[in-house]
Amino acid sequence: MSSNAAIKKTPSDAINPLESLSDLLQEDMGKVNTLILKNMESKVPLIPQLASYLIAAGGKRIRPLLTLACTQLYDGNMPRAHRLAASVEFIHTATLLHDDVVDESDERRGQDAANLIFGNQASVLVGDFLFSRSFQLMVKDGSLDILRILSDAAAIIAQGEVLQLSMTGNLETTMDDYIEVIKAKTAALFAAACEVGPIIAGQEPSAAQAMAEYGLNLGIAFQITDDALDYAGGQEKIGKTIGDDFREGKMTAPVLFALEKADAKEKAFWTRTIKDKNQKDGDLAEAQDIIARHDAINLSMALARSYAKKARLALAEAPDHNIRALLDDIVTFTIERDN
Amino acid sequence: MSSNAAIKKTPSDAINPLESLSDLLQEDMGKVNTLILKNMESKVPLIPQLASYLIAAGGKRIRPLLTLACTQLYDGNMPRAHRLAASVEFIHTATLLHDDVVDESDERRGQDAANLIFGNQASVLVGDFLFSRSFQLMVKDGSLDILRILSDAAAIIAQGEVLQLSMTGNLETTMDDYIEVIKAKTAALFAAACEVGPIIAGQEPSAAQAMAEYGLNLGIAFQITDDALDYAGGQEKIGKTIGDDFREGKMTAPVLFALEKADAKEKAFWTRTIKDKNQKDGDLAEAQDIIARHDAINLSMALARSYAKKARLALAEAPDHNIRALLDDIVTFTIERDN
Repeated sequence: MSSNAAIKKTPSDAINPLESLSDLLQEDMGKVNTLILKNMESKVPLIPQLASYLIAAGGKRIRPLLTLACTQLYDGNMPRAHRLAASVEFIHTATLLHDDVVDESDERRGQDAANLIFGNQASVLVGDFLFSRSFQLMVKDGSLDILRILSDAAAIIAQGEVLQLSMTGNLETTMDDYIEVIKAKTAALFAAACEVGPIIAGQEPSAAQAMAEYGLNLGIAFQITDDALDYAGGQEKIGKTIGDDFREGKMTAPVLFALEKADAKEKAFWTRTIKDKNQKDGDLAEAQDIIARHDAINLSMALARSYAKKARLALAEAPDHNIRALLDDIVTFTIERDN
Repeated sequence: MSSNAAIKKTPSDAINPLESLSDLLQEDMGKVNTLILKNMESKVPLIPQLASYLIAAGGKRIRPLLTLACTQLYDGNMPRAHRLAASVEFIHTATLLHDDVVDESDERRGQDAANLIFGNQASVLVGDFLFSRSFQLMVKDGSLDILRILSDAAAIIAQGEVLQLSMTGNLETTMDDYIEVIKAKTAALFAAACEVGPIIAGQEPSAAQAMAEYGLNLGIAFQITDDALDYAGGQEKIGKTIGDDFREGKMTAPVLFALEKADAKEKAFWTRTIKDKNQKDGDLAEAQDIIARHDAINLSMALARSYAKKARLALAEAPDHNIRALLDDIVTFTIERDN
């Protein structure tokens, strides 16, 4: 409802294309939310309790929004899009819950709240429930093509997460390895969320392919930006946690760029903090200093921009439409946001 | 190939109908194993490493065997049965991996080996991978009916596991609660594994319903027997671990029957050991004594027999066939086994 949306729009909303798209698709997003709440219901109280905790905790709801937008863009059946958008969000939420799970040997301070409150076992099992629910929603939709796209995405995500786990603390990780991980763990679901749209609308495979390309490259740009932000900004910055990746020993773009140019002393620093996971107070600030010295945040963002460009190129295949313009703005926003 | 099977059969095999059925369906089981191995493959080495560790660790492969048998019984397409049997086994394996996950506060001695070796995170993520693979296999099969049955089963299993988790250490648990849990966490997959057979064979819904009933009641009888065996036998018994449920504070049939007749002293014992999870050496033996005093193993087995009877009744609807006879023998074997 763009007319209603226009009334409530404030100047700060106006520059956030995710908000603008949410406003434009407000009624549809409302229906997706209703479906999400309805499908979280269970006779077992712990399930809606934990799931709603996580879903209330927010997130940008970018994936279901992409499914709605890419369906609307091709004039597809919106009730189908609502159900599949909920399905996509459930896969994402299940992944978040499973990311929460920690090992006894791990530091707990980097740990998310759901796990801290409900425990590992509950996080795993409720994640499994949401994952199953997402497939039940797809089965209700009844398209084998869409079931294939989303089950393939789910398998790719899991492989990306395992790959990331095996690479944790491994200083031999290459930039190609890194891109492979983020393609799988993040971008595959962005791609699937977008690809579903033209398929719902009964479009040719080339349209679905273009939107999948858009989603994939947007997802890569999104994740590189996330990883850069995890080292950007000072501790005093409000509303943003930094340093999680550092504490977990994840091999992300800023570290990889800094490692390429590391002298012996810096190499020893990364070995101690990331490889040996022997960290002390002040190490995060030191990591940020090294990263700044080698311009590794800017190099990461240049990498993100190269994928953003690919996303825009793929999007140009789509029909001329106000939603296409917003999807284009989202690419820019993704790499220019500061949280 | 029953002729080959006959050659390798030994007297001890002859009385185990699961072995007899495996022998009869040896070639088909071989194809299922090949599919399982093939679908565990991944560019990420940790995945086949962990999955094959778990699959090598064995288990009875009862679920895929049921799918094969129930398809053969109705003369259905066996290549489809192979793929779906692998899919069913992947759901089961994923569940086992996720059951492995422990919380920091938990005792680790009751913990399974996969988790101990690979860690919580690896267990969760590889479980997710196998779960996704199972859906990819179903999508390849292409039957929406079967996708519905197995995705429903997966959602029910997850709910059963969460329900069991919420009931851990809760002495107010009723026998109905217990049956609800085992129906969901164990019997639902047995039911789905069987129901798939007549559907592959294009049978009427009544045939699928009968086999689902058979599987459901077999699964309940199977789980009650498992739970009874966890308190049966002495520590010296070889090849069998007992007391896992006790250590984890699970509310299972033997404890529930013993609780019904507990005097004040026994009630205090269960409160300390199960509710407060404050256990010391000798408590398991004490629990076994109390359970024996109230005949709670026999009462549990009588309960298992009542479900076994229902399984047999449902099976009687199936066509007269040597496989039907073996499926009937499996019911008896399930409740008479000692491990």
